[in-house]
Amino acid sequence: MKHRGKLPPDFLFRNIVGKLPIEGEGVLLGPSLGEDAAILEVKDPLLAIHSDPVTGGGKLAGWLSVYVASNDIATRGLRPKWLLVVLLFRDGVSESEISELVDQVGEAAGEIGAVIVGGHTEITPGLPFNVVVTTAMGTGNVVLNTRDARKGDSLVLTKAAGLEGTAILATELRDLLEEKGVDSRVLDRASGFIREISVVRDAMLSADFARAMHDPTEGGLLGGVQEMALASGNGFVIYEENIPLREETVAICEALGIDPLRLISSGSLLISVSEERVDELVSELRRGGIESSVIGRLTGREEGMKLVRSNGVVEDVSEPVMDELWRVLSS
Amino acid sequence: MKHRGKLPPDFLFRNIVGKLPIEGEGVLLGPSLGEDAAILEVKDPLLAIHSDPVTGGGKLAGWLSVYVASNDIATRGLRPKWLLVVLLFRDGVSESEISELVDQVGEAAGEIGAVIVGGHTEITPGLPFNVVVTTAMGTGNVVLNTRDARKGDSLVLTKAAGLEGTAILATELRDLLEEKGVDSRVLDRASGFIREISVVRDAMLSADFARAMHDPTEGGLLGGVQEMALASGNGFVIYEENIPLREETVAICEALGIDPLRLISSGSLLISVSEERVDELVSELRRGGIESSVIGRLTGREEGMKLVRSNGVVEDVSEPVMDELWRVLSS
Repeated sequence: MKHRGKLPPDFLFRNIVGKLPIEGEGVLLGPSLGEDAAILEVKDPLLAIHSDPVTGGGKLAGWLSVYVASNDIATRGLRPKWLLVVLLFRDGVSESEISELVDQVGEAAGEIGAVIVGGHTEITPGLPFNVVVTTAMGTGNVVLNTRDARKGDSLVLTKAAGLEGTAILATELRDLLEEKGVDSRVLDRASGFIREISVVRDAMLSADFARAMHDPTEGGLLGGVQEMALASGNGFVIYEENIPLREETVAICEALGIDPLRLISSGSLLISVSEERVDELVSELRRGGIESSVIGRLTGREEGMKLVRSNGVVEDVSEPVMDELWRVLSS
Repeated sequence: MKHRGKLPPDFLFRNIVGKLPIEGEGVLLGPSLGEDAAILEVKDPLLAIHSDPVTGGGKLAGWLSVYVASNDIATRGLRPKWLLVVLLFRDGVSESEISELVDQVGEAAGEIGAVIVGGHTEITPGLPFNVVVTTAMGTGNVVLNTRDARKGDSLVLTKAAGLEGTAILATELRDLLEEKGVDSRVLDRASGFIREISVVRDAMLSADFARAMHDPTEGGLLGGVQEMALASGNGFVIYEENIPLREETVAICEALGIDPLRLISSGSLLISVSEERVDELVSELRRGGIESSVIGRLTGREEGMKLVRSNGVVEDVSEPVMDELWRVLSS
């Protein structure tokens, strides 16, 4: 499209707002021409809100933006219900590319049961890739905080580490990965992981058992465990052999020389749970169709941050983690 | 900075979160390491919320982002009090550039009395300019909607048209404008308009008198009046000779061959007010130190969208407006 800036009203309402779920509980005024803000009716005393950008998501940016922002509400133990979506399309974007991204946003929102209450769309002069910034909200009477995780708690991880990064790499670097000998069926399955990035279900099943929940994103599983430890003033020890990795993740990471534990990791939920309740939690998740593993435990801060490799070597992992995704996509 | 991706916790808390106002009414959990969402206590039944990106703001992006998002809450008649700020820094950004932008955000928030409750910061690989997406919120018992403007209402504009665009052009194209003979003192004053972009005060003074308020941004004054007319199902007639323009705006627009009525225009508030209350409104604004002008009125939809030029020629202005800023900055 040659257009630049805010999209014309006709196009906006036909091709964007018209394709999104916009009516839901508490939405008194949703996306409307000339209305400057959404008006929401808040009946619960607490509002959880978070904004997350997707800048390295390529063809999957629509899915990712809804899932990652919603995940941050789910980890508070609340169901994400309202979303604002800011779509910044790259200079020269095609109508079909806009369409695809908007469809992803609509489907992802529909899946988790949230509606789009507002946002902004424009084609941004000079922007080389699409950027999506989603703000998600949920309301309730009680919330969980990451800082409430306690020394001695077991650390449970749902699904597998690195799902988000696996899906992004399989989609964005498909040609390179095929050249490096990764089977195309492996890549197809890996791209499909994008549909497992939501942890809303994982979190809703876990909320009654958890002391705290966190969503490992950038910095991968290691970054996520670090953040939980720092927020709660603890150390940790986790065991590589207990950390679930899918074969597709292993194949792609080996081909690219990547550490899967440092790869952007939305899709798996990290749960801090008392030793007494950990079995109940794992069973409840299994009944809900979600696999999970006890990957380690929180320790005292003075015990540091430790990863026990499968060969028994203990690594200090207290340094800030730079995500492998940036290293690979920008090289 | 060579870093890419999410900023390291030390840097984040020392140079960003630590410099921003983060404590305020109803903020139960603000920006904290490892906490996935802000937790806010909502005591009023209604929440107004809006997200706005600043992509063409250059050196002024910090000011702009806070002002433009907050303006959209103020036009609902509510005081903006909570902000989430997503800072996407360009590849290769310097520490001092980060610092300057963060200082702008902090000062602007402080000025309007809002606090930063959350957000996200990263250095985005391949991003050629800084992008800031701010989400603003306010709460209350009653709100104004743009769609409630009525046929026959007077249209009042505060301050002057094109303030935002004037400030951006004077700052970003300073060398070009000097070459074209615009006096450097004019450019200094024009750059300073950035501090007048907030319409929070204008809106708070007007809320009791207005039928509806709107914030003309992209597409300029013309785009803003169009949006109000479309949202409320009306037409309009406005008079060029009644539309206030500062001499700095005129000088810069003439030098660049720009129509100031189509230039991005945050800073002036458009108010739809019944004929009976228009004088009271203008007096109230004047008592508050804000100049305003009656620029025209809303008419029936069938009467169309009309601009009466100073020479008496009547122009149809019903076509979507592409902002002059994009045209000039991208050429």
